[in-house]
Amino acid sequence: MAEAGVGSGLTRRRFLRAVGRTSGAGAMLAAMGALDLAVSSDTPWPPFRQLSYADFRLSGRSAAKVVIVGGGVAGLACAYELGKAGYDCTVLEANHWAGGRNLTVRNGFELTELGGVKQRVGFTEGQYMNTGPGRIAQWMVTMDYCRELNIPLEVFSDVNHDAYVFNEKDGMQPGHPLRRRAVVADAYGYLSELLAKATDQGALDKRLTPEDREKLIEFLRQFGNIGRKRPGDPERSFVYDGGSARGYSRWPGATGDPGVRTEPKVAPLSQIITKEVGDIFEFVMDYKHATVMMQPIGGMDAIPRALAKAIGAQKIKLNSPVTGITDGPDRVSVRYRDNGGPERQIDADYCILTGSPQLLARLPHNLGPDVQKALNTYQMNEAGKIGLEYRRRWWEIEDRIYGGVTETDMDIRRIWYPSTGYHSERGILVGYYNTGDNAVTYGAMNHAAREARALAQGVKIHGPKYRTELARSFSIAWHRVPYLENGWQNIPDGPDAPVYAPLSRPSGSGRTYFAGDWLSHTVSWQHGAFLSARKTVTAIHQRSLAH
Amino acid sequence: MAEAGVGSGLTRRRFLRAVGRTSGAGAMLAAMGALDLAVSSDTPWPPFRQLSYADFRLSGRSAAKVVIVGGGVAGLACAYELGKAGYDCTVLEANHWAGGRNLTVRNGFELTELGGVKQRVGFTEGQYMNTGPGRIAQWMVTMDYCRELNIPLEVFSDVNHDAYVFNEKDGMQPGHPLRRRAVVADAYGYLSELLAKATDQGALDKRLTPEDREKLIEFLRQFGNIGRKRPGDPERSFVYDGGSARGYSRWPGATGDPGVRTEPKVAPLSQIITKEVGDIFEFVMDYKHATVMMQPIGGMDAIPRALAKAIGAQKIKLNSPVTGITDGPDRVSVRYRDNGGPERQIDADYCILTGSPQLLARLPHNLGPDVQKALNTYQMNEAGKIGLEYRRRWWEIEDRIYGGVTETDMDIRRIWYPSTGYHSERGILVGYYNTGDNAVTYGAMNHAAREARALAQGVKIHGPKYRTELARSFSIAWHRVPYLENGWQNIPDGPDAPVYAPLSRPSGSGRTYFAGDWLSHTVSWQHGAFLSARKTVTAIHQRSLAH
Repeated sequence: MAEAGVGSGLTRRRFLRAVGRTSGAGAMLAAMGALDLAVSSDTPWPPFRQLSYADFRLSGRSAAKVVIVGGGVAGLACAYELGKAGYDCTVLEANHWAGGRNLTVRNGFELTELGGVKQRVGFTEGQYMNTGPGRIAQWMVTMDYCRELNIPLEVFSDVNHDAYVFNEKDGMQPGHPLRRRAVVADAYGYLSELLAKATDQGALDKRLTPEDREKLIEFLRQFGNIGRKRPGDPERSFVYDGGSARGYSRWPGATGDPGVRTEPKVAPLSQIITKEVGDIFEFVMDYKHATVMMQPIGGMDAIPRALAKAIGAQKIKLNSPVTGITDGPDRVSVRYRDNGGPERQIDADYCILTGSPQLLARLPHNLGPDVQKALNTYQMNEAGKIGLEYRRRWWEIEDRIYGGVTETDMDIRRIWYPSTGYHSERGILVGYYNTGDNAVTYGAMNHAAREARALAQGVKIHGPKYRTELARSFSIAWHRVPYLENGWQNIPDGPDAPVYAPLSRPSGSGRTYFAGDWLSHTVSWQHGAFLSARKTVTAIHQRSLAH
Repeated sequence: MAEAGVGSGLTRRRFLRAVGRTSGAGAMLAAMGALDLAVSSDTPWPPFRQLSYADFRLSGRSAAKVVIVGGGVAGLACAYELGKAGYDCTVLEANHWAGGRNLTVRNGFELTELGGVKQRVGFTEGQYMNTGPGRIAQWMVTMDYCRELNIPLEVFSDVNHDAYVFNEKDGMQPGHPLRRRAVVADAYGYLSELLAKATDQGALDKRLTPEDREKLIEFLRQFGNIGRKRPGDPERSFVYDGGSARGYSRWPGATGDPGVRTEPKVAPLSQIITKEVGDIFEFVMDYKHATVMMQPIGGMDAIPRALAKAIGAQKIKLNSPVTGITDGPDRVSVRYRDNGGPERQIDADYCILTGSPQLLARLPHNLGPDVQKALNTYQMNEAGKIGLEYRRRWWEIEDRIYGGVTETDMDIRRIWYPSTGYHSERGILVGYYNTGDNAVTYGAMNHAAREARALAQGVKIHGPKYRTELARSFSIAWHRVPYLENGWQNIPDGPDAPVYAPLSRPSGSGRTYFAGDWLSHTVSWQHGAFLSARKTVTAIHQRSLAH
């Protein structure tokens, strides 16, 4: 099929529509590949369509051989999707598990970090810890994969008004945990008081119509639970002085027991208008978060495990780090250590490189200086977590916290309460989840020191039980995990910056592709890994059908 | 044990402390009863303690006989708690199910409303609808009962940023569903813009220190995602013009696909500062609500079913409406129709009256005019729900809504998406949950008309699938349910008003007690029913031990 005669965009589109209508998606993809629509970086990539065996039957071609470097979510997703059309895929994974940073650890799991910290998980049977991704937004494509792969889901409580905010240094009630609901109520209350006062005094007459001024004050009375206007007394008008929204230290009960409101009644204004409180609102308003997030029941690694099962375990080579890549006109050759043993080589029609870009940049390859420069432009982020298994779920019984996150200004940064197994015997808290300098601090310690530091801080919020009820723990410093060396990437200038363009088209002489969350607009989320994989798979498939 | 010698409060307390220390809780309760501490309305009621057989062993007395009128949560809780100490309890329930308004309906359940609307539930096996209570706050004592009764829990998503806000008439984008996240982002944005402008122009100089002014503007920039100050240009300073917090119509994807933001970019200010939006914030800030609520897996009626099992089915007489109560010095006599048949009488040491106060007031009794007046002071609230079973969960797959509530200004008021069975085949939406006049409107229709009206409104939000994918439905008008006749009570002047005092102490000649959520500070919540039951049980127990 020649390009002649289909020069203009309009004509191309008409032509493709006709092909699609008469011959199905496979033929259309083949035609698109022939028209070179997808491999040029200035045309939009074709939309993802499910691959199927029928694509090749219709085109009369046979599926190609693909080697995939890296068995994280992006690599597994590539093999899974290509497998639907019968591609002969091999996944080379350097570590001893499939899933990459989507790692759920259970009893017996072993990890030796770079730097030598070695741990063997000793959690009670049935207990687990998501060491990497822990939540999925409802809109993310990750949800579609969970549905397709029959992975049962439950709610991950991202925002729980009953969890605490704890500031050691300054901010709200230093050294005293406050319920998030009280902090939010105070913020709404003060903003409403100030804005109602200013509006009433005419400060916004230029911006607001008289009708809007009245509506605004009515709205603020409701939003912030503030007092009425006291005519002639601007000082005492619209005052916020707390309310039931802040919660109770003794909750309302039967007749005769109206409860006791949370004390002190209201945090001072200056403790509320802080960066710490701003962070709380910014987090829940981030489009990647929401009050309701989701998680697979039984552990996030249900996703890579289901993908691996669908791909076929024999196609995923664990403990097989790649040692070099040679891209050529007819094939691409990938060298690797087979299960930690002798070096072998796989020749394939295509190669997909996933994993940390900086580690790919360390491999001998012939993909050219533009690729090398792109890979080295990314910046690694440090991240760490500790899982603390407790003998009893005191946070539910005593603190009345069922899932959610306590935010702190200490270097543990936050505590995650488990959003699963409510009221069961044991449970695992995430005792720190931190990044950057804080993660470096913890990562540099041995495990016992990490645990000791995390406990000392948790005790400040939850008291001695935080130490005495502990059964065991496991910690991870993602920047020290072999073959990964980062929690996620910083992408200077964003993923669409020209420097990264060589990674979004076949590189070198054209048989090597890339995929990963770092080639998406949602870095650090599985969503990005999946969509990048879909994009790469689509490109390989149309090319494979066309040639 | 005489009262002589323990006249002063301090002496009493010392005495009781000594009794408690040496003889255990049972003996202390007996002593308190002897001291008449609990039955006088001006002394605080003793704290609830778990009753046990040991209480009677220690005191050498035997457990009394108690008849409980009404097998709702309050009545069952009384029987359950008294049963722990071996009381001989009989629960008389007028309807054909135990649990009262905690009613979960499944295939085959039959209900004939007053007025004649008769339905038989035709839901698919495994599907259910909580027609009454649907959510539990983490702090509520209901959680403790779930734990004690081994009822597994899951999250009920009370607030989901991905659900819609839909206003037909005015308000935000009339006739166009907006994601809740967009509405919240716009509200935060506008309030921040207005307050930052006013602060910057000096309107709050009397209220704020220069340092606080600076902190406040920094906070608002984060809280509302507003623009910077533009020196010399107050109009264009601190402007809110949307942002990623509003969400996307096409979500960010792989490189080359940054997504498309939700349009129109921002709702006008006048559409945001409305009562409808104010209601949204007021709801989530209500102390009885939170972003994270809980529900029993498999239906809310797990609670009454577990209580009934613990009490013993033979002690709960269904279809047995009470016809009269005669309180006397030695015993209380309760007449009832035994399983809808002949009238019988039970004589007991104590009686506990639960259920709707107005219906209790209709019974012949000798409890006196003060009790009668108290019962008739309550005001009934109407409430209705419809459950719509769909053949597929289009709200998850197409609308990307996993649980939560869409709020509307139509008379359906709101749609609840199921917080369970994510990604399973079928599911049940609550197609309306309304009160007052709206509930009266729906209640007056037959079921087909209720369904038709609910569907016509849902179609405006979700399109034709809201009608075409429906499998079957069930509706309830609580104010028309026999022996209940209300959704919940209004309590004029609050539950501690003097008019209700006769209900919180033994009434008539003293052997009849009351319990119910309407005798608590959390009317309409199971929490109130449980705590009221605990209070009543405690009073009966200490009296029983003392006499």
